[in-house]
Amino acid sequence: MDIETLKAQNPAHWTKAAAIRALTLDAVAAANSGHSGMPIGMADVATVLYEKHLKFDAARPDWFDRDRFILSAGHGSMLLYSLLYLCGDPEITLDEIKNFRQWGAKTAGHPENFLAQGIETTTGPLGQGLANSVGFAMAEESLRARFGKKLVDHYTYVIAGDGCLMEGVSHEAIGIAGRQKLSKLVVFWDNNNITIDGTVELSDRTDQVARFKAAGWHVQEIDGHDPSEIDAAITAAKTDDRPSMIACKTHIALGHAAQDTSKGHGALTDADQNAAAKALWGWTTGPFEVPDDTKTAWEDIGRRGVAEREAWEARVADLSATRRAEFTRTMSGEAPKKLSSTIKALKKQISESAPKVATRKSSEMVLEVVNPIVKETIGGSADLTGSNNTKTGDLGVFDVDNRKGRYVYWGIREHGMAAAMNGMALHGGIRPYGGTFMCFTDYARPAMRLSALMKVPTVYVMTHDSIGLGEDGPTHQPVEHLAISRATPNTLVFRPADTVETAEAWELALTQTSTPSVLSLTRQGLSTVRTEHKTKNMVAQGAYVLADADGKRQAILLATGSEVEIAMAARDMLQADGIGTRVVSMPCWELFEEQDERYRKRVLPGGPVRVAVEAGIRFGWDRWLFGERGKREKSGFVGMHGFGASAPAETLYSEFGITAEAVAQKVRGLIEGKWQPDPRT
Amino acid sequence: MDIETLKAQNPAHWTKAAAIRALTLDAVAAANSGHSGMPIGMADVATVLYEKHLKFDAARPDWFDRDRFILSAGHGSMLLYSLLYLCGDPEITLDEIKNFRQWGAKTAGHPENFLAQGIETTTGPLGQGLANSVGFAMAEESLRARFGKKLVDHYTYVIAGDGCLMEGVSHEAIGIAGRQKLSKLVVFWDNNNITIDGTVELSDRTDQVARFKAAGWHVQEIDGHDPSEIDAAITAAKTDDRPSMIACKTHIALGHAAQDTSKGHGALTDADQNAAAKALWGWTTGPFEVPDDTKTAWEDIGRRGVAEREAWEARVADLSATRRAEFTRTMSGEAPKKLSSTIKALKKQISESAPKVATRKSSEMVLEVVNPIVKETIGGSADLTGSNNTKTGDLGVFDVDNRKGRYVYWGIREHGMAAAMNGMALHGGIRPYGGTFMCFTDYARPAMRLSALMKVPTVYVMTHDSIGLGEDGPTHQPVEHLAISRATPNTLVFRPADTVETAEAWELALTQTSTPSVLSLTRQGLSTVRTEHKTKNMVAQGAYVLADADGKRQAILLATGSEVEIAMAARDMLQADGIGTRVVSMPCWELFEEQDERYRKRVLPGGPVRVAVEAGIRFGWDRWLFGERGKREKSGFVGMHGFGASAPAETLYSEFGITAEAVAQKVRGLIEGKWQPDPRT
Repeated sequence: MDIETLKAQNPAHWTKAAAIRALTLDAVAAANSGHSGMPIGMADVATVLYEKHLKFDAARPDWFDRDRFILSAGHGSMLLYSLLYLCGDPEITLDEIKNFRQWGAKTAGHPENFLAQGIETTTGPLGQGLANSVGFAMAEESLRARFGKKLVDHYTYVIAGDGCLMEGVSHEAIGIAGRQKLSKLVVFWDNNNITIDGTVELSDRTDQVARFKAAGWHVQEIDGHDPSEIDAAITAAKTDDRPSMIACKTHIALGHAAQDTSKGHGALTDADQNAAAKALWGWTTGPFEVPDDTKTAWEDIGRRGVAEREAWEARVADLSATRRAEFTRTMSGEAPKKLSSTIKALKKQISESAPKVATRKSSEMVLEVVNPIVKETIGGSADLTGSNNTKTGDLGVFDVDNRKGRYVYWGIREHGMAAAMNGMALHGGIRPYGGTFMCFTDYARPAMRLSALMKVPTVYVMTHDSIGLGEDGPTHQPVEHLAISRATPNTLVFRPADTVETAEAWELALTQTSTPSVLSLTRQGLSTVRTEHKTKNMVAQGAYVLADADGKRQAILLATGSEVEIAMAARDMLQADGIGTRVVSMPCWELFEEQDERYRKRVLPGGPVRVAVEAGIRFGWDRWLFGERGKREKSGFVGMHGFGASAPAETLYSEFGITAEAVAQKVRGLIEGKWQPDPRT
Repeated sequence: MDIETLKAQNPAHWTKAAAIRALTLDAVAAANSGHSGMPIGMADVATVLYEKHLKFDAARPDWFDRDRFILSAGHGSMLLYSLLYLCGDPEITLDEIKNFRQWGAKTAGHPENFLAQGIETTTGPLGQGLANSVGFAMAEESLRARFGKKLVDHYTYVIAGDGCLMEGVSHEAIGIAGRQKLSKLVVFWDNNNITIDGTVELSDRTDQVARFKAAGWHVQEIDGHDPSEIDAAITAAKTDDRPSMIACKTHIALGHAAQDTSKGHGALTDADQNAAAKALWGWTTGPFEVPDDTKTAWEDIGRRGVAEREAWEARVADLSATRRAEFTRTMSGEAPKKLSSTIKALKKQISESAPKVATRKSSEMVLEVVNPIVKETIGGSADLTGSNNTKTGDLGVFDVDNRKGRYVYWGIREHGMAAAMNGMALHGGIRPYGGTFMCFTDYARPAMRLSALMKVPTVYVMTHDSIGLGEDGPTHQPVEHLAISRATPNTLVFRPADTVETAEAWELALTQTSTPSVLSLTRQGLSTVRTEHKTKNMVAQGAYVLADADGKRQAILLATGSEVEIAMAARDMLQADGIGTRVVSMPCWELFEEQDERYRKRVLPGGPVRVAVEAGIRFGWDRWLFGERGKREKSGFVGMHGFGASAPAETLYSEFGITAEAVAQKVRGLIEGKWQPDPRT
């Protein structure tokens, strides 16, 4: 169908879609950067979706029961910004459109969820939005099961491009969605056959239709410029009991000189070509000008959901006070009041019984008491349930016939799990946690970065956190992964030393509102070091004096997690020699960094020699060894200097020299002034 | 078919396969850890492959034209070790089998390529072997096209499990293989329907047969315990012009009490159950004992390829001296002699012309002169060819009808690209490099870690390496990625400041034999700072004095990459104020760490204040600021303290305070004793 025919057949639709196209051209040209072709190509799909299907109230982008619209092909951000502006979103004003990609604008190069409520998720790293959407849809299913469809009943719509579908994470995401029969998830594939390097065939000839069918999806193929086909396909998608993929054959940069080319993917800034495209579209107003009648038509769309939203609010108001409070609290992400006392009670009990357990088991002990009171948790594991200890007795399994279940068998899909958890957290009403081996932080990494960037409190339960996992060897032994997570802004990395610290770490993780947490947990058993009960959450300070020096303080040992008990044993040896030794447990560097200078100085005073012990590489430790009143020549590190090896854990600790003896030895040498540089770190 | 029938129908086959099963049981039981079920389940497939198809000479695992066998399901390592031992591999002796998973053994928990020549690749992180295999098969195609099938003509066989196929990287890998019609790649899927958490259906219902067909593969479905079906399927796979997937229906832990269960996936250590399984298999000898006739039968298999290997060696010997030398050099991975002089000539020319270009463009300039003389490079990009500047004029495109092409359009598949590059490097004869945006280090990360662990010199061309990329915003702006790569053992991270340093970095990257390199390159143009030609490779020292102080040395500025010119401008300001200022360019921390104390002290003497400038986070910098004769209270950092933002690059540098003014200001403050802690780093 050519453009004239499209225009003639659906003039009202065409004009509305043209508004998206024109705003995109104008904004990208003004910024002199961006991606014009995708919004132009998908304007018809988006227009039909917003006009005929999407349940939303533009003035109230925070309405909890709105349909979610996720632009997985995030480079086409002007599509989303145009829609928000046109419909009357309070935050995405015309000025924002004019300031596209400029400092301080809400209209960033790629959509950033934290800049405006109307932006559901941060996209740009391809495939992430699609994988998030699986979590959005799961969150909706879970909350609908819990609160009923009068309160929760909405769809998740996604636009994904060829890049999204080539990325590996898309495989994991569609596998999960197919398995879970997420019937309220509808994905539009912008099938324009263009990538940056050329036509898709240059790098891929996958039959996407067959592929999605193989994953258990309902699939339709349509002309992505024909409004009636689009409308019919969405209607069909909404009623099928499987997730739906609608393959929309589109032309990137439709009507522009760059149509159907890689050039069309990028910034179209040639004034003459842009003018010609606008002429072809029948768009006659100046830059950023939307004719009143067109703007009004869009604003009517933006108001379509007002009555529905008000009815929903009335239903919420009609709830019993208790139920309304619980629903409101759940939506808000606030932790239940009982959490704090529950954690304290567990701590007390543990300090008294002082069990020797792995911290992955400690984590399970915490979850066993937490999950029954924090009903919004959804736990899971990437096929390591028995190893990550993430499943507690009360959860039940989230499944097609049990949406009340709160445990997800994610399969061997660390990346998909992490991205879906982000989606759940973004959706709201769910506090997701998921486990894998810490080394496979690598697989989940793109989504873990996005948790931090997007400011969502996803919790990563990373067990088997060092050579202490033993025989599985260096492919499974993290050495640099603590550094990787610590290097990531806005991420709390907890490495608790025992069950008490694990409980404190969980309390902190579950009360975060805008920061993800990484729990680094052992495979091997650890002694309880916090045998004296304190109601205060000591981990909240990031680091604290676990055992002070007897007599003159000559040494400070800094340790985390499984190495705290090694530090304690070294302290015993040193004290026996009359060397006053303090042990500082440092379960969370980031929180310690946030303490004031006075507290930090109290914990790490200048003077004594310092030795840090951690079964990971040294990278990052210099801050605590040389900085904070420390000195290079009075400090040392006992840890890893490269990859691990395959052998029993005790052998590895011994062969790699991470022992109490080595720590004590290093302290003695430093006190005697015999500093030596580390092996290459 | 039950076991008795299988035994009766193919007794000779059965006994050979039983040897694998028994050794597996014994080794896992002795180690009291490991994975018994997979080797037991896939013993029949492996036996038929080795007996009837695999081209190899067990005594010479270094034979270049051998078929490659890749155990992607690496947890089943005893399958591989059993095969190597039984066939007579010189390194995997019976003692090694007995020392499975012990310190110092070559028989690590998961196969480690650097422990024995017979281990083609390191596997365990699921999906990696499968994705490596794509690179192996591409390397074979490329070298066959270059040297002819008399020298290069072999298959790549892979065993992949359910986990491999669930991981996202499998999607990228099979997409590439299908697109490239890698007809000599044969993948056996161990279709045992068991994962750690339970049956596969618990987390996945993907129709794998349909999925592989959708990706353009030849697919067969067989009984994985029937030798004749296995044989026929391999024969058919070898002749089809597509990559082949053979879905092998198998029973995990066949014949053991744990057959067909998740328990069977792990370590089967119950003595009675193991004895019963052996009895069922008809295996009557003691632990680790293989009857002579069975061992002999296997050793005959191990010798099947002797004549073929000798004939190949004769063909190599028959080559002209020049051609033989080139083939031998290429196989060995040695760089051509002309590389050094070519780099020097380019450096001289650049120092004279002093162009202002982005280092991604510098990299292209280097590749333009390098690729014509280093014929073993294969370049590529994950759909960012024009942005990564990885394609040079001479390369040609590697494609189905042009196997001599040396440029790969990888598509939007950073992870698959990285893993395939590892496969190429492991195969030998190829020096792979590939590009993406540095931020998408995250996507490639699992394979990047394996480059380091496996000791292969893969080169990662990571462009757009900071907020300097501008408007694309924080999803595309790396801030922690230098730290991530630096934190990874055995990885060289180069951040060159101009074209000269870029040329030096490339020379180093291309001459590595056991270390991968990450090139961190800018999007934005940079001045040439190395305007005085030096034949010496200055980057080889990791850091060096780029400009010394005029007059009394009061300050040392440390910088990398795009911030070196900022440091130089700050130096101009400070010198104008009479503050003698040295600028140290630090393009490669790892190489600087390897320098002796004398050199390091010469570059970084104690005394002057120190300010580091890098448009990334501070994490890791403390080593150079506080350590190496530095002092916290006399040092400062100018860089990022969190994620970036979307705006033009100049605005971002200015808003985030990464400017010459800020550097000079910080120096002045430090000299005046006004040290202040950084914002949270």
